Amino acid sequence: MGQNLALNIAEKGFPISVYNRTTSKVDETLHRAQNEGPFPLSGHYTPRDFVLSLQRPRSVIILVKAGSPVDQTIAALSEHMESGDCIIDGGNEWYENTERRIQEVSNRGILYLGMGVSGGEEGARNGPSLMPGGSFEAYNNIKDILEKVAAQVEDGPCVTYIGEGGAGNFVKMVHNGIEYGDMQLISEAYDVLKNVGGLSNEELGEIFGEWNRGELESFLIEITSDIFKVKDDLADGELVDKILDKTGMKGTGKWTVQQAAELSVAAPTIAASLDCRYLSGLKEERENAAEILKEAGLKSGIDKKRLIDDVRQALYASKICSYAQGMNLLRAKSIEKGWNLNLGEMARIWKGGCIIRAVFLDRIKQAYQRNPNLASLIVDPEFAKEMVQRQAAWRRVVGTAISAGISTPGMCASLAYFDTYRRARLPANLVQAQRDLFGAHTYERVDRPGAFHTEWTKLARNSNAAGVHALN
Amino acid sequence: MGQNLALNIAEKGFPISVYNRTTSKVDETLHRAQNEGPFPLSGHYTPRDFVLSLQRPRSVIILVKAGSPVDQTIAALSEHMESGDCIIDGGNEWYENTERRIQEVSNRGILYLGMGVSGGEEGARNGPSLMPGGSFEAYNNIKDILEKVAAQVEDGPCVTYIGEGGAGNFVKMVHNGIEYGDMQLISEAYDVLKNVGGLSNEELGEIFGEWNRGELESFLIEITSDIFKVKDDLADGELVDKILDKTGMKGTGKWTVQQAAELSVAAPTIAASLDCRYLSGLKEERENAAEILKEAGLKSGIDKKRLIDDVRQALYASKICSYAQGMNLLRAKSIEKGWNLNLGEMARIWKGGCIIRAVFLDRIKQAYQRNPNLASLIVDPEFAKEMVQRQAAWRRVVGTAISAGISTPGMCASLAYFDTYRRARLPANLVQAQRDLFGAHTYERVDRPGAFHTEWTKLARNSNAAGVHALN
Repeated sequence: MGQNLALNIAEKGFPISVYNRTTSKVDETLHRAQNEGPFPLSGHYTPRDFVLSLQRPRSVIILVKAGSPVDQTIAALSEHMESGDCIIDGGNEWYENTERRIQEVSNRGILYLGMGVSGGEEGARNGPSLMPGGSFEAYNNIKDILEKVAAQVEDGPCVTYIGEGGAGNFVKMVHNGIEYGDMQLISEAYDVLKNVGGLSNEELGEIFGEWNRGELESFLIEITSDIFKVKDDLADGELVDKILDKTGMKGTGKWTVQQAAELSVAAPTIAASLDCRYLSGLKEERENAAEILKEAGLKSGIDKKRLIDDVRQALYASKICSYAQGMNLLRAKSIEKGWNLNLGEMARIWKGGCIIRAVFLDRIKQAYQRNPNLASLIVDPEFAKEMVQRQAAWRRVVGTAISAGISTPGMCASLAYFDTYRRARLPANLVQAQRDLFGAHTYERVDRPGAFHTEWTKLARNSNAAGVHALN
Repeated sequence: MGQNLALNIAEKGFPISVYNRTTSKVDETLHRAQNEGPFPLSGHYTPRDFVLSLQRPRSVIILVKAGSPVDQTIAALSEHMESGDCIIDGGNEWYENTERRIQEVSNRGILYLGMGVSGGEEGARNGPSLMPGGSFEAYNNIKDILEKVAAQVEDGPCVTYIGEGGAGNFVKMVHNGIEYGDMQLISEAYDVLKNVGGLSNEELGEIFGEWNRGELESFLIEITSDIFKVKDDLADGELVDKILDKTGMKGTGKWTVQQAAELSVAAPTIAASLDCRYLSGLKEERENAAEILKEAGLKSGIDKKRLIDDVRQALYASKICSYAQGMNLLRAKSIEKGWNLNLGEMARIWKGGCIIRAVFLDRIKQAYQRNPNLASLIVDPEFAKEMVQRQAAWRRVVGTAISAGISTPGMCASLAYFDTYRRARLPANLVQAQRDLFGAHTYERVDRPGAFHTEWTKLARNSNAAGVHALN
């Protein structure tokens, strides 16, 4: 990733120095800079030579594993750096680590940016989405470079100053949480189409290709279409069928779910995708459970064409709910930390370069431009209209999958989120009555102000007793 | 709570001293000890007098708000305590705080227990479920007392030594997470019966009463039946309809969800119940959303009797999944911390006194007695059989609610959990292919060992290219 980003920067005409503890990595980068360029890239073999090769104020981008390797790298480099220089961490770092480091290096006048970078190896080389947060002064020092190396979309480069402190890392973390949700929802669409609809890999490749020319157009739908086309060169059939159904992960999805809980934000679609990664890991347990628990019979008489169209609509509607959760998580954190995040800009810089890039993000940008205080994407007039139009298909898909015993936890979570959010009256009154009964937690009433406590059991079992107390 | 627990202990014949910073609270306790007793209870007005009134080795139970009030209370009391004495914190404390305090007081030879107490005010007075963790020596000093004051069920008192460190607090935290799940599932059953089935409060009171005489017999079902019977004395109708649908919470549910994510354990039913508490708080947003988003029409032609029976089965099956999640969370933490938790014993001490007490817990105890290494309650032969028997009804309820636009996030999450866990093959192969495509994360195969990486895009778009690399 670091190598590719360095080559990207050098290719745009910005002279760049590179350093790695492993000498051969430096040489490899120099070699690629010659072969793919020539680009203005110089290699260095000690932290000191590397830092001193830079013009002041220096901007040093580090791309190492998150956690203590970042601290070690900062220690090794900052020794040779001077006041006004800047360290930019491009890793998937926990935002509080960035905030701690901002404080630590500030003692020596060194500036700091925690910059989320999305797009994988390919994005780093050809244009990633960049989410820099921290020192605004440091951002301005490197702004011209970032705007050139970022992915370019019709309304500008996929980079903007995110906010102070660890805002850049936090936004990247939520981006990854949304990415988990997208991948889970796509895998559910695949599961339903394959196991309820009986579609072949060839048909699946075509359907996802077709979907990529409509409202679902996005990098992940595009690559999904590609995946179904790849033949297995070690055995018959397509490679996708030979892949073990265990999913790895790296931590940002977990953090997103934990932060949502911390901030009192419901993010059930993202949480469902994390749970499915965990459950996918229990392969042996699942094989055992499948033997013990009889599968429910599949529904007969599926209208394949209608199912395909329904799944497309269910996927789109589920995706809106997932993005609504992610955006509301960003808003809650922005309020807590005073980051003043511009949600429309977040959607804009995700339009290119990153894994969740999609046409759809432009519509999210527009929704927040229409109303920067939008309570939820779900109630934006355009998205609201689309969801109402799609709800019948969405309910059919989830209902069909439930009957067939095919789990669609992400779509279910999105639909339950939608149906909970859009109800003026929830059964939470019962929960509150229970809490008042056993814990004297009190309740409010719908028809008058105040906090009330009731002697429920006494009243239920003796209709003559008086047991309601207004508490204020 | 502290007052009630003190009276409970004194009533059992154990002499007890009480102290509170507020003098009138001490006097009130003395007054109650006379009126309800007389019980051997003495009041004290300074920490010093209080501590010195106790026989050595002293056992001091503190019941104050979790967090810094506990630290302050420990500081005030421990000043007068001696080596071998013990502090017992009965609050809903974060387990790591208990582990820190165990270290801190150990410098002075003071022992420490973090003891979960469940049962509310009524349980504290008449027999709670107690979950003491920390010093085994301290537990033995106070064991006779705890076994007398705890709730009594046919197979013993609802207390056992949980494990070292913060094990008692952690088990209480998961107990509360399970309690959140139970309350959410019951509220969904209420919602479906009321809004799909059209049941009146009177009918609901009867149905829950009837359910409390079968497999669902439990404290929460019992009190739910009572709640529907309470008339509003400020207006016409039943009080439950006048309660504002906003639910409060105190933190243990949030911790449970965060710990599940931390431990790679899927706990979607508990997470759904937390999300619903959060969403219930957004009352104004929901009222606005309800206007913007048209409700789906209700399904006509509901067979009320069948719906009631289906909902009962759906509630029971959903509950099994929720408990499976909670028990697996306990097991994961026990392994991480070396607590050696006895899951069957946990189920046993929850059979009485606490909020989740239920006949059903005896069956969980038996399941773990049959097989202490049970991977999941879902695959215990007896529970497995019950779930298979109930799955048709369960799928009907969730499907009907989805069609009707009534959200059942907890039941949906349980069902999706069940359907995910019992499938030998999940669509996680696609997620892993996507991750390999954009991040070179590699994948495993079902038919041979090793880690593989494929040049998916190249192969999909040019069928002649070779692009698979075995990596070991």
